[in-house]
Amino acid sequence: MIIKIDKNRPLPMYIQIRDEIKRLIKEGKFNPHEKLPPSRDLAKSLNISRNTVIQSYTLLEAEGFVYSVTGKGTFVNPRSIKKVCKNPDNYDVKRFNFESLFSIAWRRFEASVMSGLDKLTSYDNFKDYITFDSPNPDIENLPIENFRNSLINSIKKYEAQLFSSEKTEGFYQFREYLSKYMLKRGIYSDPDNILITSGIQQGLSIIGRLLIDPGDTVVLENLSYPGALSVFRSIQAHYIGVPGDKEGMDINILEKILKRKKVKLLYTIPTYQNPRGSVLSFDRRKALVELSEKYGFAIIEDDYAYELSFKGIEEIPIKAFDVSGNIFYMGSFSESLFPGIRLSWIIAPKHIIKKLSSLKKSEDIYTNLILQAAVLDFMEKGYFNKHLKQFKKILAKRYEVINYALTRYFPTEAKWNSIKGGPYMWIDLPSDIDSLDLLLKTREKGVLFAPDRIFAVEDLGHSGFRLKFSNVNEDKIWRGIEIIGNILKSMLSGG
Amino acid sequence: MIIKIDKNRPLPMYIQIRDEIKRLIKEGKFNPHEKLPPSRDLAKSLNISRNTVIQSYTLLEAEGFVYSVTGKGTFVNPRSIKKVCKNPDNYDVKRFNFESLFSIAWRRFEASVMSGLDKLTSYDNFKDYITFDSPNPDIENLPIENFRNSLINSIKKYEAQLFSSEKTEGFYQFREYLSKYMLKRGIYSDPDNILITSGIQQGLSIIGRLLIDPGDTVVLENLSYPGALSVFRSIQAHYIGVPGDKEGMDINILEKILKRKKVKLLYTIPTYQNPRGSVLSFDRRKALVELSEKYGFAIIEDDYAYELSFKGIEEIPIKAFDVSGNIFYMGSFSESLFPGIRLSWIIAPKHIIKKLSSLKKSEDIYTNLILQAAVLDFMEKGYFNKHLKQFKKILAKRYEVINYALTRYFPTEAKWNSIKGGPYMWIDLPSDIDSLDLLLKTREKGVLFAPDRIFAVEDLGHSGFRLKFSNVNEDKIWRGIEIIGNILKSMLSGG
Repeated sequence: MIIKIDKNRPLPMYIQIRDEIKRLIKEGKFNPHEKLPPSRDLAKSLNISRNTVIQSYTLLEAEGFVYSVTGKGTFVNPRSIKKVCKNPDNYDVKRFNFESLFSIAWRRFEASVMSGLDKLTSYDNFKDYITFDSPNPDIENLPIENFRNSLINSIKKYEAQLFSSEKTEGFYQFREYLSKYMLKRGIYSDPDNILITSGIQQGLSIIGRLLIDPGDTVVLENLSYPGALSVFRSIQAHYIGVPGDKEGMDINILEKILKRKKVKLLYTIPTYQNPRGSVLSFDRRKALVELSEKYGFAIIEDDYAYELSFKGIEEIPIKAFDVSGNIFYMGSFSESLFPGIRLSWIIAPKHIIKKLSSLKKSEDIYTNLILQAAVLDFMEKGYFNKHLKQFKKILAKRYEVINYALTRYFPTEAKWNSIKGGPYMWIDLPSDIDSLDLLLKTREKGVLFAPDRIFAVEDLGHSGFRLKFSNVNEDKIWRGIEIIGNILKSMLSGG
Repeated sequence: MIIKIDKNRPLPMYIQIRDEIKRLIKEGKFNPHEKLPPSRDLAKSLNISRNTVIQSYTLLEAEGFVYSVTGKGTFVNPRSIKKVCKNPDNYDVKRFNFESLFSIAWRRFEASVMSGLDKLTSYDNFKDYITFDSPNPDIENLPIENFRNSLINSIKKYEAQLFSSEKTEGFYQFREYLSKYMLKRGIYSDPDNILITSGIQQGLSIIGRLLIDPGDTVVLENLSYPGALSVFRSIQAHYIGVPGDKEGMDINILEKILKRKKVKLLYTIPTYQNPRGSVLSFDRRKALVELSEKYGFAIIEDDYAYELSFKGIEEIPIKAFDVSGNIFYMGSFSESLFPGIRLSWIIAPKHIIKKLSSLKKSEDIYTNLILQAAVLDFMEKGYFNKHLKQFKKILAKRYEVINYALTRYFPTEAKWNSIKGGPYMWIDLPSDIDSLDLLLKTREKGVLFAPDRIFAVEDLGHSGFRLKFSNVNEDKIWRGIEIIGNILKSMLSGG
């Protein structure tokens, strides 16, 4: 270590020494935690008093450049050293072959999900657009004030309990409330029949892990929720799509599939299906449960939009018919409240909930309690009901508007069914129109929607697209549908 | 449908009809959504006026027993029907063979994690005990008031943004803050080098999925964090434990392993290791990074307790030496703030963060923004630093007490090393003492700790246990250590 001091300079000696050591540290001449020369030695070599060196070291310590350990000496603080890798992502990739480390499971998953399709409508990229595909809630109608109150109330009420560790199953009082809440849907449950998950996605992921090995068969509605497809892909399931009509999944075609193939799991959204908006008819619901017992497969019932009925009809969940315990029911607050809350729940027999809990535990231990308690308060105080009432009114109004607009602006070749609830409408197109082509054209005019490819379990045989209208205001609905309709007409006339 | 009315009773006719239909619904004589007889028909068959029947139906609808659809008729509301399965868990398991559906992956996982060991010390079962194994924070020293303020501030500041959908990577402003915060640890990162996860557990789970196929080899310190073991078991990894001493993992033994076996991933807690409390020495840190490049494996550095230094020394993370990008750094708020927050972060090269994001997306889409924004405010306002300062003071005091108590009450056959930070101390025992036997005895006296088996990657060769003292007050530490010490002495003298 070469420290240059100049006794003729007007700067005090201890300042000069301090500056010199600072310079050496900054230039990377020290290792982190490297010991500085003992003050006695340095004093000797510089021919100055030991106290001067001690003064310098004290200053350096006060400035955070070094630290001292009693009886051991003074050491360089790693904080003060410039690191080798200064540019955050300037790694020398030639030194390390990451490619060789990726798992086969990942490679398969990557090949199936990295389509880039989501970029076409990614909300982030198109904030000023009229987007019939935004995952965000309707900002103007959010119950922010009441939710903040519930956050404050619940922390006041439960205090440290919310900050502590919790059983994987979820906040007990919340599960207790939900088990009563589910009675309204005809489902009997104890708190121990309920597992709180970080969104429906996590519920699907752990049920998938419980039941599916690579190659096992899962059945879905053809056209289904992309998140479910992504989960079943990631566990390398074999999946089959069942076509449907306005009454939901075609049960006869399902039985044909069941006869020729051992199916372990069926994933369905019977109410306000995503993306079709259809409701599985009462008779088909009963038939589906019977088939699941006859052919021995489990059912996941994704009831994400139960609350969003705007025709006053409450559909009865499939789970309400479950006498043998093979139906996993999933509810969620993502559409009924807001997606950012990341709270859903699974209802299943207790022995199954125990197994799912141990799988969830290996994924994220448990879901934070603070938001569970806040939602509980939000429901108990009646804020949730109030919010739903208002939201359903808005939804009904928007549905009316989109219906008018579709009738007025869309060509007769485009077909759609009326819906009774939920955030989605589905438009079927003639097979000579590609919905992706349409999207690329409407995007130029500032209008977005979700093309069929995103939802396709199997080839649909024709084209179509989904319109999410729950979070688009009436004016934008009107303008957006006009734009899509005009482009569609011009495409149909060969334009 | 048999409706009995009595024209001689003093009850109005429409009330009688209403009561009869209510009775029939309650007795399960109707299917959900079943149509009631048209008012005209029922009136005719009962020989009364149609208006009377309409009055009854109107009453039933107001009470929620039926609903009417204009032009179609009146239908039974499924809510009002008693369901087949009334007892929440009274499923007829004979009707459905769930056993045949469980995945092989699940069976393997179940066999490895369902040891029942955790029940021995499960905090829920032993709330009044002196427990040196509680996952909960120190309730008396929680910054609840400030955290509540941060929740309120952040909702005021970001409003709807927090309720909306977000990129899987996490709340941008939070990642931005963390990337600056990490500079203090000598790690250079952009927000895009950071992925927010729901706890370290989720981070481990997705890194595991990215790199490990069944049978791939993972190396851990022998004695390691049980949550990591659980993740690697769940993806059916082959794992090897490396023994360590008070300077951490033995690098020479590690290299011997690397020479004979292709290793894909090494998981380490270099600072305040769980369960040993040891700190990997500076030379070993450098050697470990060199080995990872030489033998081509990735490293997960779990830096869960970085902030909990109580000797004024800040260890330099391994990640700060990373020039080839093969080190996944993980930080967490579980020990430094509280476990219920469920927030951790991964730092890695951008191309790796993208891959991990798409895996996280398939697990839970993204972590809620509300708590990310609250922690951001908590840090920005200086609450976090204030909390840490106080917490480290308490920790230092408790460490002093536990050290005194151990010296005073523990037999000389029990050995432990001094520690510089973190919540854990490790006690080595002679091989003729089984820590599980010891636990069963101290449990009878109301004292709990975590026995070696929970942390064992491979057979340890002797016995030992972990004491978590960060959340036990001085009085309880003193009494608890006395009780364990006395029982230990009596066991050693053959008692």
